[in-house]
Amino acid sequence: MSEFKAAVAEQQFVLEHIVNLAELGVDDDIIEAVLSGAGEFAAGEWAPLARIGDTEGPRWSPEGVTMPKGYREAYQAYVAGGWGTIGSPEAHGGQGMPFALSAAVLETLGTANMGFALAPTLTVGAIEALAHHGSPEQQALYLPKLATGEWTGTMNLTEPQAGSDVGALRSTATPRGDGTFSIKGTKIFISFGDHDMADNIVHLVLARTPDAPAGTKGLSLFLVPKYRLDADGNPGAPNDVRVVSIEHKMGLHASPTCVLAFGEEGGCIGELIGPEFGGIRAMFTMMNNARLNVGLQGVQVAEAATQRALAFARERIQSPRASAPGAGSVAIVEHPDVRRMLLRMRAQTQAARALVYLACGQVDRANAGDAEAKLRLDLLTPLAKSHATDLGNEVASIGVQVHGGMGYIEETGAAQHFRDARITPIYEGTNGIQAADLVGRKLGLDNGGAFQRLIADMRADVSDPLLRDLITGCEDIARNLLAADMDDRLAASTPFQTMLSVAVCGWLMAREHAVAESGTTPFLRAKASVTRFYLEQIVPEALGLAAAASAPAARLYELDAETLAA
Amino acid sequence: MSEFKAAVAEQQFVLEHIVNLAELGVDDDIIEAVLSGAGEFAAGEWAPLARIGDTEGPRWSPEGVTMPKGYREAYQAYVAGGWGTIGSPEAHGGQGMPFALSAAVLETLGTANMGFALAPTLTVGAIEALAHHGSPEQQALYLPKLATGEWTGTMNLTEPQAGSDVGALRSTATPRGDGTFSIKGTKIFISFGDHDMADNIVHLVLARTPDAPAGTKGLSLFLVPKYRLDADGNPGAPNDVRVVSIEHKMGLHASPTCVLAFGEEGGCIGELIGPEFGGIRAMFTMMNNARLNVGLQGVQVAEAATQRALAFARERIQSPRASAPGAGSVAIVEHPDVRRMLLRMRAQTQAARALVYLACGQVDRANAGDAEAKLRLDLLTPLAKSHATDLGNEVASIGVQVHGGMGYIEETGAAQHFRDARITPIYEGTNGIQAADLVGRKLGLDNGGAFQRLIADMRADVSDPLLRDLITGCEDIARNLLAADMDDRLAASTPFQTMLSVAVCGWLMAREHAVAESGTTPFLRAKASVTRFYLEQIVPEALGLAAAASAPAARLYELDAETLAA
Repeated sequence: MSEFKAAVAEQQFVLEHIVNLAELGVDDDIIEAVLSGAGEFAAGEWAPLARIGDTEGPRWSPEGVTMPKGYREAYQAYVAGGWGTIGSPEAHGGQGMPFALSAAVLETLGTANMGFALAPTLTVGAIEALAHHGSPEQQALYLPKLATGEWTGTMNLTEPQAGSDVGALRSTATPRGDGTFSIKGTKIFISFGDHDMADNIVHLVLARTPDAPAGTKGLSLFLVPKYRLDADGNPGAPNDVRVVSIEHKMGLHASPTCVLAFGEEGGCIGELIGPEFGGIRAMFTMMNNARLNVGLQGVQVAEAATQRALAFARERIQSPRASAPGAGSVAIVEHPDVRRMLLRMRAQTQAARALVYLACGQVDRANAGDAEAKLRLDLLTPLAKSHATDLGNEVASIGVQVHGGMGYIEETGAAQHFRDARITPIYEGTNGIQAADLVGRKLGLDNGGAFQRLIADMRADVSDPLLRDLITGCEDIARNLLAADMDDRLAASTPFQTMLSVAVCGWLMAREHAVAESGTTPFLRAKASVTRFYLEQIVPEALGLAAAASAPAARLYELDAETLAA
Repeated sequence: MSEFKAAVAEQQFVLEHIVNLAELGVDDDIIEAVLSGAGEFAAGEWAPLARIGDTEGPRWSPEGVTMPKGYREAYQAYVAGGWGTIGSPEAHGGQGMPFALSAAVLETLGTANMGFALAPTLTVGAIEALAHHGSPEQQALYLPKLATGEWTGTMNLTEPQAGSDVGALRSTATPRGDGTFSIKGTKIFISFGDHDMADNIVHLVLARTPDAPAGTKGLSLFLVPKYRLDADGNPGAPNDVRVVSIEHKMGLHASPTCVLAFGEEGGCIGELIGPEFGGIRAMFTMMNNARLNVGLQGVQVAEAATQRALAFARERIQSPRASAPGAGSVAIVEHPDVRRMLLRMRAQTQAARALVYLACGQVDRANAGDAEAKLRLDLLTPLAKSHATDLGNEVASIGVQVHGGMGYIEETGAAQHFRDARITPIYEGTNGIQAADLVGRKLGLDNGGAFQRLIADMRADVSDPLLRDLITGCEDIARNLLAADMDDRLAASTPFQTMLSVAVCGWLMAREHAVAESGTTPFLRAKASVTRFYLEQIVPEALGLAAAASAPAARLYELDAETLAA
């Protein structure tokens, strides 16, 4: 993807005006230097590997997974450049920069090469879990290596019989008498579960201790290194974690999705992270930020698809404009419907970025002890994960369409974005699970107060009548949902989640528009136009979801499953 | 796809109540026999080959294209069974059944194996062109073989520099002095441009005669057989048509998409079809029904994805319902949000089918001399092509989502539908081209009368207030579009096209609902529930498009292309 260019000016704008990053104590100079440097690194080292990652992909053998040519070197360059340390805790060798800024860096890496960037994304989850729940010894041994990216991390949740149903997990952890546990079980869908880019891999594994209660309550989290550490803390003997296979996925090929067998030979040793039965809590620590990072993948793929489509549309000459048939053929960007598609791509990408960054900024404020920011984060997380990934898919699909027939040919690259994007509404909790979380837990946070204060903040900034209608519509529907039974809530959950997400994005686009509208630089003129397009064309669509977001469950159950399938 | 079952009852219902097939002189017994027989044939012979078509696909060599194992035999079985002859003219050995009925058969074939079914789809286009524009000699030599499918047909339009811009074609046809022409040029994106399933391939090629005017006016259509016919009308010497390569496409792998070089050795002989410079008219004859058949592909992939998702959702056990946590884990079809996705898949599939069949029925009436039906057909064609393919993509995407993580794994099959579907909004005129056709030509047919009579017919059947609002919204917007300049029309064209398509589908769903609501059979109860879901949840969404469908072009051109891309 030679045309990749990090969206530095846009990132800075959103960090300044939506996140208020200055409040978090980082100088503008540093922000600019970090974002520009990440952009240059990603364009030079990671973007050129995006296509080979897709076409060749990692290879499995009984000894493990070999990444495509160039990946190990490009990963090592990432470690050596210090890009892994940006958001890691200073206490463990990181730079301790705000999560929102590290997210912007991760966005750039993933826009350059989405599958590749999943490796650091998962490492961040492992760092979070250890930083919050690990013992001082565990932190001292593992965090410095994870903080730089010298070692990578994985999350081992899913088993064949337990996808979204985490409570159905069966992997076991049996005490060995010395404080460690013998781990047994098979885990599936383990991203970067094995590879040859780093010297060790730190698996975080959900499993059950003997006599643990059934369901999620009985789960504990274990630290299982690929290589056990020797007395000096260096990788030593293999730890009986076998890569059974890697999946044939539709996309995101650069990321090896592994089936891992733990303890087939009885020699897999793990350590408990946090208390016994604290697994689900630790998992949520890992997953919450992981959900934002998956939302960020929506931004990544949207940005990449938009850049590619714009480059194509400016070069591809086809037909005169219908309004000027005598003026000769023009680049397709000049045709109204193509222009509309490109503006929509830009607008949806900017909306997704604003939403995800807003949530990331709450992580920093929550970490600094701001309780309201923690509530706001909890409320925004399902929106950021689900809506940004939905938008990533929408934008990638429009990108294919802009390319016409060439979009369907793999060599063009637009198809890869379309395939890559499709996993993001599924993993880290499907978007339906996010919607269930929204209507089942998040709307009711602080007795509904968290939601009410979000609505109030939105309303205070917004004068556009359509957007005000949308905000009021969300408020009314939320009130009804909170009073409804669980089936009715869930029946309406996905349309409501989209509606509320567009309302939040509309609010953010309106704020950005207010900053940009008096500007005269090309960036600000573009920002003003794109945000206005969002308010005029995309906000009204969400009003059309009110009926579905208000529909009770009864209609869904008129037919039994057999009749529906007949 | 072992779970494939032709949707015979649904097809019959739509043919009866939307198409009024009885009016076209076919007995119910025959309809049932044809549809059931096609279903059995497709399930037995074509569906089992869908996966190998995707994973192995056709192979190219300098000698030509070899189809995957089993395809030649399955194609020959199709010919032997007479399935190709159903809609072909009786005068040329076909059964002369209504186009609408042959469309239902093609739907079944394509639901079983979408890529494979493209071969007969293109043959139908060649038959149409020859039947309308060929000389008696050409018809006598070629139509009987095409009518049975013994020979297949192709459409050769696109060249590298001429995608949607057909006027930019450069291929040449030079008179050889004996009434034939020497053809030279390279054509791309030729579906089933070569294969080993039939004894000859009849290429229909757009090219320019010497001194032809520039643009579309100078195009003529040529008949170029892969093998020239000998004195007995049998395939003889090769005709200098070389398969340069086949494309690496995202999906629809069973269909070899060829680059064809005509006349590299100076030995490619073609015959004019119709008059010189009649190429574009003949092309539209080919393409109009081809557009309906691509719309039908939307129905095919939607039906296939829905059947697969329903089967999965009824088997996959995950978690208790949130409303009954003590009742144990249930099949995911019992979870409200999954049930909503499945109902949506069903509803959108039924809507797409009703829309496409309605248009197909107009073909039959127009062929019988009904001028109003011809106008209705012209108006409905862009809707049927664009909206049914959009829905095919939406439904295939929901199908992936229902499968969760398994949906992203190729072995499951849901991903194939998602990849296969993505070409349909692009080829045979992108959906943006359809929208341009709608607002640029079709709305103004008969001085706007064709559209007005459609609106009047819809309104006469509809009492649902939301749907009546949508119909009125479409009417108002159309009035403004007809008065607007071309840029403003085009700027609004795609949102308007969707809005009007949903209005038409809503009308058809309301008609189907009226038939079904008093029924007591499982089929009618399901029909009543699914159509009601469409009216309650999907019609209101389209009202949200009114703003975009009313937006002028000015916003799109505030930014020049460079600023937009910066």
